[in-house]
Amino acid sequence: MGNTFGHLFRITTWGESHGGAVGVVVDGCPPRLPLSPEDIQGDLDRRRPGQSRITTQRQEEDLVEILSGVFEGQTLGTPILMLARNQDTRSKDYDEMREKYRPSHADYSYQAKYGIRNWQGGGRASARETWGRVAAGAVARKILRERCGTEIIAYVKQVKDLAAEVDPSSVTSDQVESNIARCPDAGVAERMIALIEAARKDGDSLGGVVECVARGVPTGLGEPVFDKLEADLGKGMLSLPACKGFEVGSGFGGILLTGSQHNDPFYNAGDRIRTRTNRSGGIQGGISNGEDIVLRAAFKPTATILKSQETVDVHGHATTLQGRGRHDPCVLPRAVVMVEAMTALVLVDHYLRQKGQCE
Amino acid sequence: MGNTFGHLFRITTWGESHGGAVGVVVDGCPPRLPLSPEDIQGDLDRRRPGQSRITTQRQEEDLVEILSGVFEGQTLGTPILMLARNQDTRSKDYDEMREKYRPSHADYSYQAKYGIRNWQGGGRASARETWGRVAAGAVARKILRERCGTEIIAYVKQVKDLAAEVDPSSVTSDQVESNIARCPDAGVAERMIALIEAARKDGDSLGGVVECVARGVPTGLGEPVFDKLEADLGKGMLSLPACKGFEVGSGFGGILLTGSQHNDPFYNAGDRIRTRTNRSGGIQGGISNGEDIVLRAAFKPTATILKSQETVDVHGHATTLQGRGRHDPCVLPRAVVMVEAMTALVLVDHYLRQKGQCE
Amino acid sequence: MGNTFGHLFRITTWGESHGGAVGVVVDGCPPRLPLSPEDIQGDLDRRRPGQSRITTQRQEEDLVEILSGVFEGQTLGTPILMLARNQDTRSKDYDEMREKYRPSHADYSYQAKYGIRNWQGGGRASARETWGRVAAGAVARKILRERCGTEIIAYVKQVKDLAAEVDPSSVTSDQVESNIARCPDAGVAERMIALIEAARKDGDSLGGVVECVARGVPTGLGEPVFDKLEADLGKGMLSLPACKGFEVGSGFGGILLTGSQHNDPFYNAGDRIRTRTNRSGGIQGGISNGEDIVLRAAFKPTATILKSQETVDVHGHATTLQGRGRHDPCVLPRAVVMVEAMTALVLVDHYLRQKGQCE
Amino acid sequence: MGNTFGHLFRITTWGESHGGAVGVVVDGCPPRLPLSPEDIQGDLDRRRPGQSRITTQRQEEDLVEILSGVFEGQTLGTPILMLARNQDTRSKDYDEMREKYRPSHADYSYQAKYGIRNWQGGGRASARETWGRVAAGAVARKILRERCGTEIIAYVKQVKDLAAEVDPSSVTSDQVESNIARCPDAGVAERMIALIEAARKDGDSLGGVVECVARGVPTGLGEPVFDKLEADLGKGMLSLPACKGFEVGSGFGGILLTGSQHNDPFYNAGDRIRTRTNRSGGIQGGISNGEDIVLRAAFKPTATILKSQETVDVHGHATTLQGRGRHDPCVLPRAVVMVEAMTALVLVDHYLRQKGQCE
Repeated sequence: MGNTFGHLFRITTWGESHGGAVGVVVDGCPPRLPLSPEDIQGDLDRRRPGQSRITTQRQEEDLVEILSGVFEGQTLGTPILMLARNQDTRSKDYDEMREKYRPSHADYSYQAKYGIRNWQGGGRASARETWGRVAAGAVARKILRERCGTEIIAYVKQVKDLAAEVDPSSVTSDQVESNIARCPDAGVAERMIALIEAARKDGDSLGGVVECVARGVPTGLGEPVFDKLEADLGKGMLSLPACKGFEVGSGFGGILLTGSQHNDPFYNAGDRIRTRTNRSGGIQGGISNGEDIVLRAAFKPTATILKSQETVDVHGHATTLQGRGRHDPCVLPRAVVMVEAMTALVLVDHYLRQKGQCE
Repeated sequence: MGNTFGHLFRITTWGESHGGAVGVVVDGCPPRLPLSPEDIQGDLDRRRPGQSRITTQRQEEDLVEILSGVFEGQTLGTPILMLARNQDTRSKDYDEMREKYRPSHADYSYQAKYGIRNWQGGGRASARETWGRVAAGAVARKILRERCGTEIIAYVKQVKDLAAEVDPSSVTSDQVESNIARCPDAGVAERMIALIEAARKDGDSLGGVVECVARGVPTGLGEPVFDKLEADLGKGMLSLPACKGFEVGSGFGGILLTGSQHNDPFYNAGDRIRTRTNRSGGIQGGISNGEDIVLRAAFKPTATILKSQETVDVHGHATTLQGRGRHDPCVLPRAVVMVEAMTALVLVDHYLRQKGQCE
Repeated sequence: MGNTFGHLFRITTWGESHGGAVGVVVDGCPPRLPLSPEDIQGDLDRRRPGQSRITTQRQEEDLVEILSGVFEGQTLGTPILMLARNQDTRSKDYDEMREKYRPSHADYSYQAKYGIRNWQGGGRASARETWGRVAAGAVARKILRERCGTEIIAYVKQVKDLAAEVDPSSVTSDQVESNIARCPDAGVAERMIALIEAARKDGDSLGGVVECVARGVPTGLGEPVFDKLEADLGKGMLSLPACKGFEVGSGFGGILLTGSQHNDPFYNAGDRIRTRTNRSGGIQGGISNGEDIVLRAAFKPTATILKSQETVDVHGHATTLQGRGRHDPCVLPRAVVMVEAMTALVLVDHYLRQKGQCE
Repeated sequence: MGNTFGHLFRITTWGESHGGAVGVVVDGCPPRLPLSPEDIQGDLDRRRPGQSRITTQRQEEDLVEILSGVFEGQTLGTPILMLARNQDTRSKDYDEMREKYRPSHADYSYQAKYGIRNWQGGGRASARETWGRVAAGAVARKILRERCGTEIIAYVKQVKDLAAEVDPSSVTSDQVESNIARCPDAGVAERMIALIEAARKDGDSLGGVVECVARGVPTGLGEPVFDKLEADLGKGMLSLPACKGFEVGSGFGGILLTGSQHNDPFYNAGDRIRTRTNRSGGIQGGISNGEDIVLRAAFKPTATILKSQETVDVHGHATTLQGRGRHDPCVLPRAVVMVEAMTALVLVDHYLRQKGQCE
């Protein structure tokens, strides 16, 4: 259970990191959307491990196959199945995991829940699972772009204590893609890259913050009281591997202000009502107000490291675990694409719900 | 849409702040649970406005009526309807809201979404809506306490820049309830109270952080990949009025550590596998691992203030709004009860799901 | 669980026949629909026991109270709570049921499932539960009527072996309401009434068939493959108390034809494509095709009779049960209203879903 | 939307008859169930076209591939993806369908709903879609068999006016599989086969009734009021292609009895409470009572025939359609497997729900 996300635009992901394949079913995609593998492969390539020297060197081909739901280049309104075969399955790297629980991984909790686990890699807890989210997110982004002109851009805002200065209202994709850290603040990006490389050499890992902006979001998206827009966005982000925190608008920082400092004054911008500041992050009362949606997601340092760690084995005996082979010193540059995908999935679902109930 | 929460233990809240009543339907409560209004009224009284000099002085009677689902003192397994009539409806306080959008309230976004709004108070965006969550949460807490021995305690961790020192593993309800700030750090609590009183006199408002611990949570709760335990907890908190941020375990602070510092080593505690540290916050891979679940929710300063503010009216004209009457200078002491309720609702739902699929 | 119906227009009913009240929450009703108790009370009066000499003489006031979701005469787009207090609770009529399982009632199966039951009446298995469906159905009908011009009319098609001749394409509400049997074939209606009265005097009960037509249904409603329109209609009807069968279009009778006799030829009717016959019952491939939707629901003879019956008591001892007091010799005339309500609920839900995904 | 079925044991089918593949995701399967392709292929072979001279001669390989959710021969508790590539895609057979709406097919209604359709075959409306249901149903059957000893057997009860005599309480799979009609009444089976062969030669088609019995069903399954067991069974059957009617227990025939004739007397069978008759069909008040569940589904004569028919083309012009190639003169023998699958899917879902809420 729990592998479906969305109410009208519903995705179901499936696949272990070391099974036959990973993939996703998208149910509820509007019909007559032009769609081809090229629309999807771009984001998948940005998600792919091994794309730069600061991510894991694990190789995945990741070529998307679309097996249903598209006919003569257009969506049918029926379920879209997309998958990628697993290829790089060096399961002997994982032999030790058969017996030992990796600290801060999901090995122990999966075993406790299901009484079984795929110990050849992270199974469903692996970042490989996000392949399906990114594929589905690419469809969602295309709908939002074509129908509403909505643009979604995420970037690395912070790695460890290195924080970038970025203006969400003007940042561009080109700036984000201009360096392998996916940080649009070029100076800080360079230092981030150095920091990540040092961690990689040290066999250690780093966490950080991804910030995401959605510009051109229609007003009225979000379904109070439980499916408020920030609640669904938060759920989406917190369901990503390694995500430990989420905030929207002023977030945790906003508590240092008083109400009179924090409130966003309204004004008439001619074509629509706007707010002078945007501490609300584009959402008020759980509903988009037409301003930029700005959110941040915190990712802990990756659990896989190459240092020796204290743990127990499946028999309950104390032991140590010495990581081997390749590791991902910092998931942040790839997490950018996952955050964009989850943002798009939430927005398109609420866009369709709004059309259904209120238009 | 969007007024239902949970998959097996499902609640649907209803009611505006100034309609006939507010309430909740609980569907999926296990049968044969002893249940009476006394089990519920305690938390409702803690949620109630007007309970102390630092919350809003708005009076609500809030007496719970149970209209179905309970028979001869026990739950039937059928839907439980609980409601409270609205009584303190001084709608002339709100006459100005008919015409003017209150900054950082939901007036404008509700109007943009629905083309209509209940301007006599906050409607569904009012904290009054949380009455039903707290009532349902009391049922959830009782199930968890009786079946699993789970204990859920929330408290005010921070108001503006005043942060308390609290040990989640040992904090008690008595400590929380020992002062009107609901902060178990007595020294800081006193300063918080003074700060809130000053804000009240100034017609301004304050935000802060509520921390919550769940102790005695069974292992195995949480449904990867989308219904991970932290994802549903995050959604629950972010659906509360004024909540702008959520984190679990090390959260945003954890990004300052490296992986080797952050990972929680496993050890055999005799009766079960435990972790030496708890930066995971009791959840790994989206599944509870038996350690304390520790989470934090950030609440912005309340939007209602008694100072003059720039805004526009429903005709789009620039105007100012001067708040009048009573206001809530700090929602935190009451939010404690809401956070406990949402935590309980998520945990009980996943407890039932786990029983269904995996036992 | 299981007390919610619908995906975008979602209703949750609650309440036992002998608890405090019965009611319904409607979530997802479009905003700005004019709505008052008068829009709803009419159908509730048609559903009410005691309305004629051939239904049960049990009296229920059944006056609807709307406690949320409507403001200044219009829906807000927020949940609508409607309830009616229970009044006629002669629970001493039911003392025997505390100890004995009534044959073909739900006493035993509820006890087996929940380990408890409200023995003072039928609890949730009572026809009283349908109050909430009919109230919600009245809202659904109003939306369909105002937005699509859809008209839904049900009537008693058969009682025991007495079958009426009715043309679904032209039958009117006035014809249905012209007699207490709610059978528009006046001659047969008279004989039905005599048959039911004889059963009442005999302390026995009768079953039959309700037929329902929906005219002016938009094309395109229905969500293959599982939420096909006939699948959701079937589920709706089969969830009504005492319903044992459902068919659409040619139904069970259609199997006597060959494909060449059964297929509905298409023709161009000028303004739209139509079919010359309507054996499909207005639904093809699970999607409405613009023709009249015609369905039938079979209701078994009511389980409550006043004759002595063999049964067992809660201790497993053989015993007999002698019904007493009032009974409902034929639920058909009241079931008409329930069938209309379920039809409306399914259609409005699919109307909103269609708007969401495809428009 | 609408391609997911079930609440705890959830299946999502995908795939057009003439796309790349068809398949299903099963989410919520309990962990540690031994599962291999052999467990599934048997039912798939029984579902397969071309298996006998009285079904369509269309050839499908239909070999199941399991791409996720199974590890070292056991289920992981994670989503199970099963698929079969489409191979026999003679799309030139369908060229005429590009332009013409086939009577009583879904061509027109899909076009009306989605504004597009896969005209190369029936798309999602094809019986090919049921591949995924049967694959998932095989998993469901295995769970029910291993955990509860439940046995599910369906058979052809009637073809056109040829009705078989079958005792649901004693019929065996061997009897069903002993002839290509899948009718356990050998004498009638022979006449059915002759009737179907005659229809095939005539280019015409036949409908009929499939009856299904589930023996050894635990008591307590079913979730009143909307997810009553018969309501979900009905929805499951009516979502099958060509199904126009459903009944449980006495069904439409039961209306000819009075209540005193129809009620099922209870008696104490020693180990459990039973009923002397079973007109309830094993379900009372929407909940299984431990007796055999007996249901029937009516299938219309297949829409595809080889005779000339009146219709219109996509431009609205009157035309005729002359079927060509292979057709399925009677879907009943294959529908048997689909009915078993849907029965299993409903029962296993309610079995898990019951465990979750009530145990």
